[in-house]
Amino acid sequence: MTFHINRPDEKIIPVLKDKIDNLTKPKGSLGTLEELALQIGWIQQSLSPTLTQPHNILFAADHGIVEEGVSKSPKEITWQQMLHFAEGGAGVNFLCNQHGFTLDLVDAGVDFDFPADKGIIDKKVTKGTRNYLHEAAMSEEEMDLCLQRGAEVVEMVHAQGCNVVSFGEMGIANTSSSSLWMHLFTGISLEKCVGAGSGLDNAGVTHKFNILQQAVNNYQGDRSAHDIIRYFGGLEMVMAIGGMLRAAELGMVIIIDGFIMTNCLLAASKLHPNVLHYAIYGHLGDEVGHRLVLEHMGAKPLLQLNLRLGEGTGAICAYPILVSAVNMINEMDSFHKASVTKYFV
Amino acid sequence: MTFHINRPDEKIIPVLKDKIDNLTKPKGSLGTLEELALQIGWIQQSLSPTLTQPHNILFAADHGIVEEGVSKSPKEITWQQMLHFAEGGAGVNFLCNQHGFTLDLVDAGVDFDFPADKGIIDKKVTKGTRNYLHEAAMSEEEMDLCLQRGAEVVEMVHAQGCNVVSFGEMGIANTSSSSLWMHLFTGISLEKCVGAGSGLDNAGVTHKFNILQQAVNNYQGDRSAHDIIRYFGGLEMVMAIGGMLRAAELGMVIIIDGFIMTNCLLAASKLHPNVLHYAIYGHLGDEVGHRLVLEHMGAKPLLQLNLRLGEGTGAICAYPILVSAVNMINEMDSFHKASVTKYFV
Repeated sequence: MTFHINRPDEKIIPVLKDKIDNLTKPKGSLGTLEELALQIGWIQQSLSPTLTQPHNILFAADHGIVEEGVSKSPKEITWQQMLHFAEGGAGVNFLCNQHGFTLDLVDAGVDFDFPADKGIIDKKVTKGTRNYLHEAAMSEEEMDLCLQRGAEVVEMVHAQGCNVVSFGEMGIANTSSSSLWMHLFTGISLEKCVGAGSGLDNAGVTHKFNILQQAVNNYQGDRSAHDIIRYFGGLEMVMAIGGMLRAAELGMVIIIDGFIMTNCLLAASKLHPNVLHYAIYGHLGDEVGHRLVLEHMGAKPLLQLNLRLGEGTGAICAYPILVSAVNMINEMDSFHKASVTKYFV
Repeated sequence: MTFHINRPDEKIIPVLKDKIDNLTKPKGSLGTLEELALQIGWIQQSLSPTLTQPHNILFAADHGIVEEGVSKSPKEITWQQMLHFAEGGAGVNFLCNQHGFTLDLVDAGVDFDFPADKGIIDKKVTKGTRNYLHEAAMSEEEMDLCLQRGAEVVEMVHAQGCNVVSFGEMGIANTSSSSLWMHLFTGISLEKCVGAGSGLDNAGVTHKFNILQQAVNNYQGDRSAHDIIRYFGGLEMVMAIGGMLRAAELGMVIIIDGFIMTNCLLAASKLHPNVLHYAIYGHLGDEVGHRLVLEHMGAKPLLQLNLRLGEGTGAICAYPILVSAVNMINEMDSFHKASVTKYFV
C-alpha cells in the first residue's frame, strides 16, 4: 500500500488568521474555536471551510493475546457488541444520532460469522490475530490487506460526500496492542503505558504488564515502524491506520478518539508523518497512558469527560466544537461589516 | 424578593444510579455523562429527564466604575454589542443557532435608549450603576427591582416550555464587580481575583487592582451577602442572580458560563445555598480568577476551550454534552433488554 500525504500549503495561513482576527470579538477570545477554524481551513485550503456528512467508522477484530488473560472481558464481547451496535442501542449509537454521524460497522477480523443482514461491512482479513507472546500477530500479507481495506472504507465514505471522519474500535484486548505500540514508539516505560482497559483490578494490571513485558522480551524483529505495527497490532487497528492515511491523502479532517485510536495515529505517523496535520484530538480518556501519549505527541484534546468506552464516543462528543469553529468563521460578522468599535487587541 | 428553593428529593438517586449502571457499557465508562444524567434526573425527579427549549438570557448594563479606567474598552461597547447581538452576527448568535437556543436580550441598565424595534427586552432599572469607589453601586430599591425583573424573564421563558437556561452578560467593567464579589465571598486575596478582562496589559491590571483595593478599603457596609451584592454589583449581574434563583425555584437546569456568571452563582448561593444543586458548570475560561473560584466552589466545568468572550458562549458550547447525558439515559439499551454479556464491573 502506498499513500501520498501532503503537508497542506501554508500560504493560506496568514489569510485565515486575518479573517479570524477581524471577526467581531476580542482577538483570541474564542480560544480553541479559533485554532480549530485555522486548522480546518488550512486542511481544506479554504477561508470558508465546511464539515459535511460526518462518519464514524468502527473497526472490530479479535486478538490472539486474549488467551493470556490480559483482559477482564471474554473475547465473545467483540462480536456481541458489534451486533449490539448494529441493533442501535449502544453508546456509540445515541451519540451518532445526536450529532448526525453515519455509523459504519466494519468487521476487520472478528472470530465470528456475522449474518449478512446486519449491515456490517465485511472486510474480514482473518479470524483474529495470532498471539504475539510467541509470534507475529499478522503476516505481511495480512497487514497489507488491513491497510488496503481500511483505505477502501474511507474512499467509500468520501465518495458519499463525507469530509470529516472519526474512527472507533471494538476488540477485546486491544489496549494491550496499544500499550505496546506506545512503549515502542515513544520510549516511555512499558509500565506507564499499561492500564486497566475495560476494568482490570491492580492484580490484573500487573499480570497484563508481565505478559506484555515478556512479549517485548521475546520480540526479535527489526524494530522498524512497519514491523512493530505488524508484530503487535490488531487487525482493526491496522485497518484504522489505513483509513487515517487515506483520509489524510484525501484532505479529510480526522477526529481522534481515545487511547487506542491515539496510538493508531501515532503508529500511522511513523509511516507517514504528515498525517498528523489532519488530526484533531477529541478526548482525553481515563486509560492511564492516554495523557502521556498525547503529551508526547504535543496534542491538546478538546474534551476531558472521563469516558473509557471506546467505539469512537470521545471523538463524536467533540464534533459540535468543530462545527462551532466552522460556524464561527462562516457566520460571525467582521468589523468591516458590523457597526462595532474595534476595541479589541 | 423572596425565593423558595428546595433541595431536590434524594430518594430518586439510587434508582437513577441503578438505571445508569444497567445501561450496556462498563459501569462508569461514560464518565461525566453519567454524572450529568444523575444530576439532571435528580433536579427533574425523573428517570427519563428531558431538556426542552433552551434559552440563553443575556443581561446587559453599564458600570459607574468604568470612569476609573478599570477596563480597556469604552463603555459605548455595551450598547453597540447589544445592537450587534440583535442583528445576529456576534459570537453568541452562531452558537445559539447551532444548538437551538433562543437568545433573549435584556436591557438591565444600559446607558443608551434602544430603539423599540430591536427585540431587546426592556427591564432597565437605571442607566448604569454608581461608582462604587465612592458609594454603593445601587440602592436597595434598585437591587430589589433587579432581582424581581431577572426572575420575571425566567418566568416568561419557563412559561414558553423552557426547562434549561444559561445566562450571559454584556457590561463593560463587569469583571471588576465579579472580582470584588469573589474576593469578599471566598476570602481569596484580591490580587488573585483580578485579571485582564477584555484585554488589559500588566500595567492595566495593576491599575485595576489598585482601584478595586481602594474600593474595598472605602467600603463601610455590614459585609452581609445582601450588602456586598448591592454595593459592588452590576445591574445585569444582580438581574442574573434573580434569574438563577427563580430558575432553581422552578426546577430548571442552569448552565453556568464564565467568570462573571460563576461569581453571580456564588453570590446567589450566599442568599440561597440550594441554588447550587441546579447548576452545571459549562466552561473554565481564561480570566485568571475563574479556576480559583470554581475550585473554591468544588465545581468541575465541562469544557476548557480558552474562551473569554462572555455572552453565555461557554455555557452554550457545553449544551450538547448535557443533551448526550439525557440521550444516554433515554436511548441506550439496558442489559435486561440487550443480548450482551454483562461483563462489566
